[in-house]
Amino acid sequence: MKKIVIVGGCAAGPKAAAKSKRLNPDNIVELYTKENMVSYSACGLPYFIGGIVPNVNELIVRTPEEFKKQGIDVFLNHTLKKILPDENKLIFNDSKEVFYDELILCIGSNPIIPDIKNNKLKNIFNLKVINDGINIRNASVISKSVLLIGAGYIAIELMEAFLNNNLKIYVLEKEASIMPVLDYDMSDILYKNILKRAEDKIEFIFKDEAIEFLGDEKFEGVITKNGRQIEADFCVIAIGVRPNVDIIKDTGIELGLTGAIKTDNKMRTNYKNIFAAGDCSEDFFIPTKQSVYMALGTIANKQGRVAAINASDVNQNEIFDGILGSSVTKFFDYSVALTGLSEKKALELKKYINIDPVSSFVEEYDKAGYMPHIGTLSVKLTADKRTGEILGAQVLGSGSADKRIGVVASALRANLTINEFLHLDLPYAPPFSSTIDPLLTAAYKLKDMINL
Amino acid sequence: MKKIVIVGGCAAGPKAAAKSKRLNPDNIVELYTKENMVSYSACGLPYFIGGIVPNVNELIVRTPEEFKKQGIDVFLNHTLKKILPDENKLIFNDSKEVFYDELILCIGSNPIIPDIKNNKLKNIFNLKVINDGINIRNASVISKSVLLIGAGYIAIELMEAFLNNNLKIYVLEKEASIMPVLDYDMSDILYKNILKRAEDKIEFIFKDEAIEFLGDEKFEGVITKNGRQIEADFCVIAIGVRPNVDIIKDTGIELGLTGAIKTDNKMRTNYKNIFAAGDCSEDFFIPTKQSVYMALGTIANKQGRVAAINASDVNQNEIFDGILGSSVTKFFDYSVALTGLSEKKALELKKYINIDPVSSFVEEYDKAGYMPHIGTLSVKLTADKRTGEILGAQVLGSGSADKRIGVVASALRANLTINEFLHLDLPYAPPFSSTIDPLLTAAYKLKDMINL
Repeated sequence: MKKIVIVGGCAAGPKAAAKSKRLNPDNIVELYTKENMVSYSACGLPYFIGGIVPNVNELIVRTPEEFKKQGIDVFLNHTLKKILPDENKLIFNDSKEVFYDELILCIGSNPIIPDIKNNKLKNIFNLKVINDGINIRNASVISKSVLLIGAGYIAIELMEAFLNNNLKIYVLEKEASIMPVLDYDMSDILYKNILKRAEDKIEFIFKDEAIEFLGDEKFEGVITKNGRQIEADFCVIAIGVRPNVDIIKDTGIELGLTGAIKTDNKMRTNYKNIFAAGDCSEDFFIPTKQSVYMALGTIANKQGRVAAINASDVNQNEIFDGILGSSVTKFFDYSVALTGLSEKKALELKKYINIDPVSSFVEEYDKAGYMPHIGTLSVKLTADKRTGEILGAQVLGSGSADKRIGVVASALRANLTINEFLHLDLPYAPPFSSTIDPLLTAAYKLKDMINL
Repeated sequence: MKKIVIVGGCAAGPKAAAKSKRLNPDNIVELYTKENMVSYSACGLPYFIGGIVPNVNELIVRTPEEFKKQGIDVFLNHTLKKILPDENKLIFNDSKEVFYDELILCIGSNPIIPDIKNNKLKNIFNLKVINDGINIRNASVISKSVLLIGAGYIAIELMEAFLNNNLKIYVLEKEASIMPVLDYDMSDILYKNILKRAEDKIEFIFKDEAIEFLGDEKFEGVITKNGRQIEADFCVIAIGVRPNVDIIKDTGIELGLTGAIKTDNKMRTNYKNIFAAGDCSEDFFIPTKQSVYMALGTIANKQGRVAAINASDVNQNEIFDGILGSSVTKFFDYSVALTGLSEKKALELKKYINIDPVSSFVEEYDKAGYMPHIGTLSVKLTADKRTGEILGAQVLGSGSADKRIGVVASALRANLTINEFLHLDLPYAPPFSSTIDPLLTAAYKLKDMINL
């Protein structure tokens, strides 16, 4: 019997709590969160904002009462103030002391807030926790326009949500393209598809940034570096997150080079009885064998599970062996997915590691050409010219992009070369793909370019 | 410069012809087919019959005129009568002689016709070539009822087509379940879903078979072994195909144990300059490392490509290294897909090869639970208990079954064990899957059962 304390209530924390209790019902399991809700899908918030999910309670996976029934005590509104590893002690809020045998830190991430004049005005939001989602939805349904700073995953999902709410959208992006995680050629295809659907409702301002927010108490607009003035009813900043690790400083718990908490592949920190999982911890990126920081819900979930197993029983050897950065999002029926390295990223890495990236690109139907509701898929497949090893893939389109990325993720995990990959026996029927899947067409093309 | 002669005009043949010419424009490439059309999607015929594809010409990939433009001569209505390997000569129709340097046989398969009294009546159809599709559609739009003999892939697709045409359907199946390629528990789930949608329009008669067709000139009904009399306006027999190899007898071209043409992994027969591809040739089944016979469009296409490359240049080393039997079909929005071994098949093989199959089963949402249009997925994952190696998967559901099967096909190709498989980094967003994909939930469960 052990007392396992988990801090953090979104994805990794609740998963770790449930798993810890299930593994050994004798364990005392306590879950602390600074929020007034626990165990919800943060990834679902854009769909709540856009009205696709009508009630925020639908995003809640388990209530504190449900945890209680499983024998897990949930403590809401508990802000972690201090971690004392040598005393196995935590301090919450003013002075509440909590002791643990095993500690699992799932303290998540914070949105990056750029240093812009007047950034404390009302009606400037981030989308991180459930109350952010509620506030943005509330603003969204009474407004006519919104300024969105950033054009990554969350911003794309918010564009869809705000269009559902009939808002005029201004998107301000520092880079020259949307979704900078994609190669430029791919993000350009996505960009054109977004414009095709919503040219009159979304205005993109690239290579520019906010320097001053306008308004007295309440946000009214922005002045940009290039001298542009944009007025809007509210603003959402969605330029990414960083690990929430201020609390870690001076505790002796090590951070990695990425700035997130360093763990081994059992999710254990440098303290034997302290684990970290989810957005606060760094990840081992399989394609480069280096540490990276990626804040993704599915990773949080898996890490929470692994941390719980190892925390519950020191003899366990459950490992989390790394990530590929597989991800997917959509803009209405147009989906975007990727896994592994983009060509851009691989070319950057060429300076440091021994790779020689080469990519093929194909644009194909997503079904047999004669089927109704046919869509196109744009597939970019990247491999190492020296070895033929697949490095990554990006897929966009009105067909199932995520389906193809799952296949490549599986191939990447197994270190398949392009010569092996093109033999994949993928299922075919006219409503599901072309006879030769676009992925394989891209692979044939890439094989000819590599010619090993 | 070579003269490459291809016999067969559906999938493998046209692919081989196009590839042969593209590889070396100096090649003389001739394509012979017994049909009056060439290069069409036989897999699309059920969608033409059901009116989803309104015009049969949409199924045609390339016309003879288009082939001509590419420098390929197509000869329609040419029935192969004799192969004379030692003279490099073919005889078509009455006496037309054709010489070749390289021959690619893509002579396909024939529907299995059971030995039932009166099976030559009018209005008894098979679905194999494009004219079958036209005849069945013509019968279907003026009839009120149909008898379908068999309940496999094609039959499932025809059920959807016939429901679209408002027919009452009788399905007569020798086995105790539909889709015998699935495990019984999985086919039972599919069966219940078909009934849920169409209970009043489809009547299934299991464990029974036709012994006599009724009618004078025209099919009017059937008498079954169990003494049942069923009346219907027309009949489709869909109980599978066998390789079209009567013409091969006494040619010296070897057949394999499966009865189909034997080839090496370059699609070459025992004659150096004779290749075979598609439904007439047997396949190497990766999970058992044995020869099998499977007639699938995607395999035909790939084999046609490989045969063409090796036929065009003897120094080429393009291989087709085997199949997993990956396949997918659907009944309206309910899809069915599988790859590798079913549990049933693996248990049968246990007598001959050293495996110990074990399976997990999960039923999960196909998206985040709060998203609209949510469906369920039933996943069965089978692995070898001794080694943890994945053997196969079956996925059914209103969500994307084929997506999950593509991932498993990739894992099978790479010999991933269950302990490796459950680390797969599959992309997640609420509209695309649950946070932990049902495939991975099935994998966790299977890992616990195997416990290596």
